[in-house]
Amino acid sequence: MSEPKENVLMEKIVSLCKRRGFVYQSSEIYGGIQGFWDYGPLGAELKRNVKELWWSTMTRLRDDVVGLEATIIMAPQIWRASGHVDTFADMMRECPLTKRRVRADQVEPQSGIAFRYTGAVSKSHYLLLEAGLLDERFAGLPPFQSEHYAESFLTSGIPEKLFGGISTADTTALIHKYCQQLQSDSGKKASDTNVTSYLDLRSGKGWPWDGPAFEYYWSVAVEAILKGAVPFSVLLSSGKPPESARKVAREFFEKHGIKDPILIGESTEKLENSVDFHPESGVRLSEARPFNLMFKTYVGPVESEDGIAYLRPETAQAIFAQFKNVLETSRQKVPFGIAQTGKAFRNEVTPRNFTFRSREFEQMELEFFIKPDEAVEVIAGSVATPKGAGHPGEPEANWGWQLWHQYWVEERIKFYEGIGLPRVNDKGEKLLEEYWQKPEELAHYARACVDILFKFPFGTQELEGIAARSDFDLSQHERFSGKSMGVFDEELRTAWTKLDDAKKKDVSERYYQARLKYLTKVGVEQAKAEKDAKEDAEGLAKGQYIPHVIEPSAGVDRLILALVANAYSELTSTDDKGKSETRVVMKFHPRVAPIKVGIFPLLKNKPEIVAKAKEIFASLRTQMMAFYDDGGAIGRRYARQDEAGTPYCVTVDFDTLGENPELLNTVTIRHRDDGRQERLPIAELAGWLQARIR
Amino acid sequence: MSEPKENVLMEKIVSLCKRRGFVYQSSEIYGGIQGFWDYGPLGAELKRNVKELWWSTMTRLRDDVVGLEATIIMAPQIWRASGHVDTFADMMRECPLTKRRVRADQVEPQSGIAFRYTGAVSKSHYLLLEAGLLDERFAGLPPFQSEHYAESFLTSGIPEKLFGGISTADTTALIHKYCQQLQSDSGKKASDTNVTSYLDLRSGKGWPWDGPAFEYYWSVAVEAILKGAVPFSVLLSSGKPPESARKVAREFFEKHGIKDPILIGESTEKLENSVDFHPESGVRLSEARPFNLMFKTYVGPVESEDGIAYLRPETAQAIFAQFKNVLETSRQKVPFGIAQTGKAFRNEVTPRNFTFRSREFEQMELEFFIKPDEAVEVIAGSVATPKGAGHPGEPEANWGWQLWHQYWVEERIKFYEGIGLPRVNDKGEKLLEEYWQKPEELAHYARACVDILFKFPFGTQELEGIAARSDFDLSQHERFSGKSMGVFDEELRTAWTKLDDAKKKDVSERYYQARLKYLTKVGVEQAKAEKDAKEDAEGLAKGQYIPHVIEPSAGVDRLILALVANAYSELTSTDDKGKSETRVVMKFHPRVAPIKVGIFPLLKNKPEIVAKAKEIFASLRTQMMAFYDDGGAIGRRYARQDEAGTPYCVTVDFDTLGENPELLNTVTIRHRDDGRQERLPIAELAGWLQARIR
Repeated sequence: MSEPKENVLMEKIVSLCKRRGFVYQSSEIYGGIQGFWDYGPLGAELKRNVKELWWSTMTRLRDDVVGLEATIIMAPQIWRASGHVDTFADMMRECPLTKRRVRADQVEPQSGIAFRYTGAVSKSHYLLLEAGLLDERFAGLPPFQSEHYAESFLTSGIPEKLFGGISTADTTALIHKYCQQLQSDSGKKASDTNVTSYLDLRSGKGWPWDGPAFEYYWSVAVEAILKGAVPFSVLLSSGKPPESARKVAREFFEKHGIKDPILIGESTEKLENSVDFHPESGVRLSEARPFNLMFKTYVGPVESEDGIAYLRPETAQAIFAQFKNVLETSRQKVPFGIAQTGKAFRNEVTPRNFTFRSREFEQMELEFFIKPDEAVEVIAGSVATPKGAGHPGEPEANWGWQLWHQYWVEERIKFYEGIGLPRVNDKGEKLLEEYWQKPEELAHYARACVDILFKFPFGTQELEGIAARSDFDLSQHERFSGKSMGVFDEELRTAWTKLDDAKKKDVSERYYQARLKYLTKVGVEQAKAEKDAKEDAEGLAKGQYIPHVIEPSAGVDRLILALVANAYSELTSTDDKGKSETRVVMKFHPRVAPIKVGIFPLLKNKPEIVAKAKEIFASLRTQMMAFYDDGGAIGRRYARQDEAGTPYCVTVDFDTLGENPELLNTVTIRHRDDGRQERLPIAELAGWLQARIR
Repeated sequence: MSEPKENVLMEKIVSLCKRRGFVYQSSEIYGGIQGFWDYGPLGAELKRNVKELWWSTMTRLRDDVVGLEATIIMAPQIWRASGHVDTFADMMRECPLTKRRVRADQVEPQSGIAFRYTGAVSKSHYLLLEAGLLDERFAGLPPFQSEHYAESFLTSGIPEKLFGGISTADTTALIHKYCQQLQSDSGKKASDTNVTSYLDLRSGKGWPWDGPAFEYYWSVAVEAILKGAVPFSVLLSSGKPPESARKVAREFFEKHGIKDPILIGESTEKLENSVDFHPESGVRLSEARPFNLMFKTYVGPVESEDGIAYLRPETAQAIFAQFKNVLETSRQKVPFGIAQTGKAFRNEVTPRNFTFRSREFEQMELEFFIKPDEAVEVIAGSVATPKGAGHPGEPEANWGWQLWHQYWVEERIKFYEGIGLPRVNDKGEKLLEEYWQKPEELAHYARACVDILFKFPFGTQELEGIAARSDFDLSQHERFSGKSMGVFDEELRTAWTKLDDAKKKDVSERYYQARLKYLTKVGVEQAKAEKDAKEDAEGLAKGQYIPHVIEPSAGVDRLILALVANAYSELTSTDDKGKSETRVVMKFHPRVAPIKVGIFPLLKNKPEIVAKAKEIFASLRTQMMAFYDDGGAIGRRYARQDEAGTPYCVTVDFDTLGENPELLNTVTIRHRDDGRQERLPIAELAGWLQARIR
């Protein structure tokens, strides 16, 4: 049972993040906004460092990846092609009163008395119902006059006790009953003549003014009454007065458009641990429906269907949409990748775990486009098979999707290791884990997907996913946009001509089957799917194909949180008087640490020392984030930098000035993690630091 | 008349941007989305360089500015406090048919025949109007029976010729007329008795079934008819048949909820150059109304008023909202600044000029917080006054808002100069201009605002605004959030005690007046404003105040466009055969150029040369964006890099390998702008380049 301890750790981390300006709650002065977090001065630097390292690792230091920076709002068709409009949803149930939604699988069980109603009518219609005049048996008759009676009854004040459920009793008897009631209760005249002429009417003897006006108003009345025929239930915890249930029900029906609602058909039931009621309002939830997680807005001067747009829920799709443009303008050939970082938005129902699952977050995504295995086979003779676990080395021409996938899994882990998140840390704790999704967990188009998991204080959770997505994405955009997403591969075309017929037939058939599988899975009608797949197979023989893709997709914010959690450590020291003090040391890897070096004059009031410290500061800050501090004792200054996660502190002292001539123009460098100090010539300082922070 | 030439230049720039992967239209394969642009591989690098330079200039290289990275979606109260919910709007006119909006000040003049209608009724109501039964003179009478008649008339098919405008003629006469018409035209019985009993009713003789049902249906009818009482006009260009105007009008009224509309009160007028009609639909526009430019969405599981949120229209407000958090966690004291870059969104009605005015864009904003002048005066004895134009030098303790404002204007221009956008370029052309907003152009709270303008191909337009915004922003957030935005200034408190009473009274009074002016301007009721201003003045004496702010606010995308436009140049060369070729050279400043250096082996098929070139490439790319190219003749490779804006190209040749022993391990560096070449030892290369690109 390590949970309580872990919660304490998360609390400490959240508190440290606020105290030192790593992370603040967004809009805090207005009570915050759930699922949104801001990065303060240190957090912003940390995040910049992480993104910059990812970008340079992915693009600048590679020959085969280029960058892209697309907009957050894109044409909505993109999200139809990607499937997000139709399927990017959680199953949700809604409280029909407050419109609040809960995840269908996360409703808290509740007990009490359920008050149920079959519906409600407005006062101006209830008598029609009471009299059974809206019974379908009489739908063919002109009913205006009976309504007229009914309305009269209302204004003459029939006692409440007469109102109940929808009557199915004999209509004629009811009419008589009410007319008599009217006479005896209010003394107002409702002559037998009137009742008789009504009955004449009902029996088909006719009435002088039948016609379309009757039907028009009749339909208005029916519509208004049908509107109220909505079942509603609310759960009362035992002991609460029934009237409070009725109040809620009336509130619901009023909101629903029933003026002065009279409740119909009340019944009650005792329930234990029901998961059908909203935990706050107590109202029975709607059936589970998919609730799309994309934030919606309207672009342009018209707020209509035409203008609907979404905040991107992932950065990946822009890469697919711009694939052809990048291919044509960047001198790249498949295999190559397009990298992008940027904000994405998901209207998470329950944002949680600090910045781990938030509604606005940043992604770092690479789409690495590769040849289909059939093309590799034609060009290289055969497709290489993975030789066990570990990094498969430098890419080769005979790599199919499996080796490329393995390659990217290992490359990404190498990246994490390079910023201080190894598979296993110094203490032997498992920090990173690979989780290979099981076949039944994969999307239909995915060949494989590996999640890189990190041991967060609240549990082991996904840091990055590396998916082999086949040619699904580009194929979808080709189908939805009508623009070709295929590439022409000269090598393939040449190699194809050298195959013997049996091989040609074999490869063709396999490619045909793969394309056919995709086309039928996405719902293309069989005959067309076969025709298209045949064309695709013929295209392959001419050197054409739609690239497949490997997608390493990482979340910046959860990586920041992983780095913060991993860096967090406490140091307890006891002074001479036996008084012990615990302080925080943030052991960030120097490559990601927000501040790289602190520069301190030993004493604030020695101008030569101060001048020299400032000179060093001025020269270092042009190359890296440096911090000058002359406030308080050196120990205090070290402690402040430890808490900020600064890996190195440089102190200028009397020796620097030559008090000990051997140490002239040297400084002390103090290491954050073990407090170790060493002496270094000023001239070597920048190089020494650069070697460690790059 | 330089416009045509300038349009040509913009076309060339847009084309180059797409061709070389600087800027693509967002979602291009889906036909694009207006006002959104993506940055391709070179554009993304260019943009990163600009942002990185801004960030390091503003934060890393300064002691008095720290960074922030806040969310795009924040609590909606922020936009109430800032005034964006109420006033961030363009005046717009809407086409009532298509709901398309146009800027009120940008309607194209049009001429033709205007067809006007006073309204329309549905077929099922028009006879009521015809008969004058809805005339206000008879509003008090129970009219059900007349409707009944009217509906009967309808079904019996009264000829079209009787329909016209709303009649004001005598009702009784009309009823008689229609009844007679009915008799003679259709042969159906409408007995004189019926007409008589109706007239009896109108004359007050009573009717047996008056009552609430009448009134209910009567009101339904009146509501339906009033709904159609909406004037509508459409402009036809001369020669078009009137029926096409009627068709549009009927379409409008149908959309408006009038079933089978009969148009009422048609009239026509000839118009010249009217600005009242929508340029596409021809429909008369609504009155101008403010149209908020913020994109709206809903956060959380409820799509209701509670969940409304906006995409930030500027990054500035997050800085104000987090001011206190940053102040408390960063060890800064006023004067200091908070810098932020990030996306912002404005639903521009007419995005235009390529990326200059787009709907999704990026900002680089600094909020620099300063002491109110009254505090400076108390602390420093007096407030320094600006000594003419130009940079006022390093900040001093006696600077008030004017000098700080001037300082930031000059700092920002220095920044632009540092990336190749000087006030005046080599050719003597004025590139940057300062525009001091006139007092009547300023917002009520602004003390001054300077726009830095750049000479774009489409005109001289704003690149950045530097506003002195008084203490308006923090004061607003204090009022709206109820959280103090004030700071405590020890220096001020100490200095105050040393003032004589007259001075105290004088400063107090001035501060009181300034605060009172703010409070009354934002609508605080006079008595409360006086009370609050008095408290603020008393606070000042205790060292408390709300900081004032200077805001240099720059747009990344328009700066990129300025850099691209400024870099764009064409080089025409003529070969031996007299054939001339024009190619593009992008003369980016080395600090912003996407690729810093191209590295070429002279020949692709000499392994030693290739190996050496690759070695140099491998070493340089760890420090800067480098590009290796071995394709085609050296001239072609230079040309490709010229078009990408790469300032330097390095060629490895036989001399590098020692063919000429004196040149062993040297390379040729070729300068983009003048084609000049020089020889440099490989060992010096990195340093040589670093000195130029930093």
